Amino acid sequence: MQDTAHMARAIELAARGHGGTSPNPVVGCVLLDAGGEVVGEGFHAYAGGPHAEIVALREAGERARGGTAYVTLEPCDHTGRTGPCSRALLDAGVTRVVIAVPDPTPKAAGGAARLRAGGVTVTSGPLAEQAERVNAEWLTYARLGRPHVTWKLAATIDGRSAAADGTSRWITSAEARADVHRLRARCDAIVAGIGTVLADDPHLTARPAPADDPSLTAGPVPADDPRPTVRPARPLRVVVDTDARIPPYAKVLDGAAPTLVAIAEDATATGLDADHVRLPRHDGGGLDLHALLKELAAREVVSVFLEGGPTLAGAFVRDGLVDRVIAYVAPALLGAGPAALGEAGVRGIGQAHRLIFDEVSLIGPDVRLTARPVPPPHSREK
Amino acid sequence: MQDTAHMARAIELAARGHGGTSPNPVVGCVLLDAGGEVVGEGFHAYAGGPHAEIVALREAGERARGGTAYVTLEPCDHTGRTGPCSRALLDAGVTRVVIAVPDPTPKAAGGAARLRAGGVTVTSGPLAEQAERVNAEWLTYARLGRPHVTWKLAATIDGRSAAADGTSRWITSAEARADVHRLRARCDAIVAGIGTVLADDPHLTARPAPADDPSLTAGPVPADDPRPTVRPARPLRVVVDTDARIPPYAKVLDGAAPTLVAIAEDATATGLDADHVRLPRHDGGGLDLHALLKELAAREVVSVFLEGGPTLAGAFVRDGLVDRVIAYVAPALLGAGPAALGEAGVRGIGQAHRLIFDEVSLIGPDVRLTARPVPPPHSREK
Ligand SMILES: NC(=O)c1ccc[n+]([C@@H]2O[C@H](COP(=O)([O-])OP(=O)(O)OC[C@H]3O[C@@H](n4cnc5c(N)ncnc54)[C@H](OP(=O)(O)O)[C@@H]3O)[C@@H](O)[C@H]2O)c1
Ligand SMILES: NC(=O)c1ccc[n+]([C@@H]2O[C@H](COP(=O)([O-])OP(=O)(O)OC[C@H]3O[C@@H](n4cnc5c(N)ncnc54)[C@H](OP(=O)(O)O)[C@@H]3O)[C@@H](O)[C@H]2O)c1
Repeated sequence: MQDTAHMARAIELAARGHGGTSPNPVVGCVLLDAGGEVVGEGFHAYAGGPHAEIVALREAGERARGGTAYVTLEPCDHTGRTGPCSRALLDAGVTRVVIAVPDPTPKAAGGAARLRAGGVTVTSGPLAEQAERVNAEWLTYARLGRPHVTWKLAATIDGRSAAADGTSRWITSAEARADVHRLRARCDAIVAGIGTVLADDPHLTARPAPADDPSLTAGPVPADDPRPTVRPARPLRVVVDTDARIPPYAKVLDGAAPTLVAIAEDATATGLDADHVRLPRHDGGGLDLHALLKELAAREVVSVFLEGGPTLAGAFVRDGLVDRVIAYVAPALLGAGPAALGEAGVRGIGQAHRLIFDEVSLIGPDVRLTARPVPPPHSREK
Repeated sequence: MQDTAHMARAIELAARGHGGTSPNPVVGCVLLDAGGEVVGEGFHAYAGGPHAEIVALREAGERARGGTAYVTLEPCDHTGRTGPCSRALLDAGVTRVVIAVPDPTPKAAGGAARLRAGGVTVTSGPLAEQAERVNAEWLTYARLGRPHVTWKLAATIDGRSAAADGTSRWITSAEARADVHRLRARCDAIVAGIGTVLADDPHLTARPAPADDPSLTAGPVPADDPRPTVRPARPLRVVVDTDARIPPYAKVLDGAAPTLVAIAEDATATGLDADHVRLPRHDGGGLDLHALLKELAAREVVSVFLEGGPTLAGAFVRDGLVDRVIAYVAPALLGAGPAALGEAGVRGIGQAHRLIFDEVSLIGPDVRLTARPVPPPHSREK
């Protein structure tokens, strides 16, 4: 079916925006003329840049009149940094608009209604699930008012993330580590617990190899690519540090990227000379992670890359705050050593946190498993 | 290249013998006439049945004269339950024989030499690695004088094989469990530790669904398939039980399949009314696993399916006695509970048991990872 093929292309285009559009969604658009010929394509490439529909309309010019637009997300109806796309589509004389996913935000929604009011035929539905998937981060943010959380772990086949003596360099391959840098670069914030900072003193910056930058490898970029340059990847580094134990010489405080230290409302933080935020404590110990995510959302953090360690990851899983798990499994066995995931509130097998695998791939000699919770957090929280 | 294509077909044929040929190897053969036309195909289907070469020669008849034979394993040169295949190839007038893997057994080797002596051109090499792989079980047995060991584990993404309260039914899916039965049925023995027997009282029989029997699903079987019927899968059940603690009412002692209980030389086994063997103790506790495998080899056990638990599996891994790991990874997180693998003699990451992944597949909702050690046990043991 033609609708499906054009929407698939629009989703492909949308994906090119990954890592650049935050706090906006990724959006792709394909425009046909009245005869069904593709006359324009576009995607939203960076926040503040033109929306997908505008890029496609510019390419199409007069040929959009009487045509059809395929958009992965309902066209916006508000005048933000750019004018409303609903208006632009009407002005261009498009007569049919196919939408994969409705816009859940009160501010931007209403695009479909305005189009209908303007006499445009609006169809919705094709490839809704794929379009949800490509925009998972932003849709979580828009629906739940908190960032989307990807938890990354690296472990052996038997689930160990370090050996008995604590050594873990390296469990996974250079290829897997490069992949992690690529994923870090696509997120707005990288979160780690104070345990990891004290044990490993990680830098928590994204250092993707140039060839690993998704904007350079996602396929041919249209000649009218609106992005002036590749966005420098400097995700916010967040340390979850209840009692402000972080040492002043910690590498995460080196200024290579912004850093936020989350501490308890009542923590003594006399020695802390870093940007920090005070949050309520969680009943079971540590900080209230819902409050942490709300605070990050207020700072326009749409996507979080949670690097652990096991204790903090366990708390995120326990609280239903992990939206995606990316596991790098190394072809090795240890038989002892710390597990990749700590206490997550499960006693019996019936309480296991169940997921579904979305993707399985080989990264060098390692296997990468991508999974998401079932049912998804937003349906659980309602 | 033609040689490679014909050998690939011979390997495909060999694989059809899996689960039926023990204690013999699996072997496949493709026969061409003088003009390069395929005139015969065969595989060794069950111990005591005709060898692959004989099946192919029968199909070819007079057309084998002046032709070429592709065999996955060097043709045997001894008169066992069947005559020597080297002789049969010479008698049929085959003038060229291509061999993937030489026969490592003193008893059967010499086939290539006899063929050469008879004026046949013998070439070796194409697809040697794949031909090794298809015959991994038997080659391990032939080279090392011990069975090939496949360790199976079922765990969550975070490496737990049960929840904190010990419950584990079910971590993996019905599809994964059916796959395990299929693999059990292909092995000569299923080995478990007394810990597992006491905790779970498993049956340790192979109960593959008819549609899961590999001999029924490996593709069209030639009309002259020599197998009278599908071999009933009754692998030997082996319980590793140092101090003969197995209770008389244990399900593994129910007579549904033969069972062997391995106990220490000095164990008191007054209550033990089951077939058993006495073995030396291992310095670090438990039984000497090399002695166990030697004992099984003496009973013509070519392939062992090790079902755990974690303690026994750790000891096998520590001793370098695991030749293949099959991990069923369920899309779930537990955060607590017993690990899939226990102490395996590793302190630091440098001593990790390194493997390589051979296969990654989806089994229902679960992922199945197949890996083998690198370097392989036989090169380490030399
Ligand atoms: N292989 C991998 O993928 C990987 C990744 C990262 C880390 N690691 C390893 O993990 C180890 C460190 O892990 P870890 O578990 O000790 O530390 P962690 O998870 O990094 O940090 C745990 C700490 O976070 C703080 N925290 C604040 N709010 C919390 C909450 N709601 N729930 C839980 N914790 C909260 C607590 O500090 P307070 O006690 O001060 O409240 C807690 O002790 C290191 O050895 C590191 O190498 C491995
Ligand atoms: N998810 C899975 O794939 C899976 C599979 C199987 C089992 N399990 C679980 O594993 C648990 C039982 O495991 P387990 O670790 O307690 O027991 P186990 O590994 O089944 O048995 C361990 C026992 O085997 C005996 N043994 C003899 N020789 C040994 C040697 N050389 N090295 C080590 N052990 C030797 C020892 O008995 P002595 O102390 O008498 O010497 C030892 O205590 C159960 O809860 C079961 O549910 C899970």
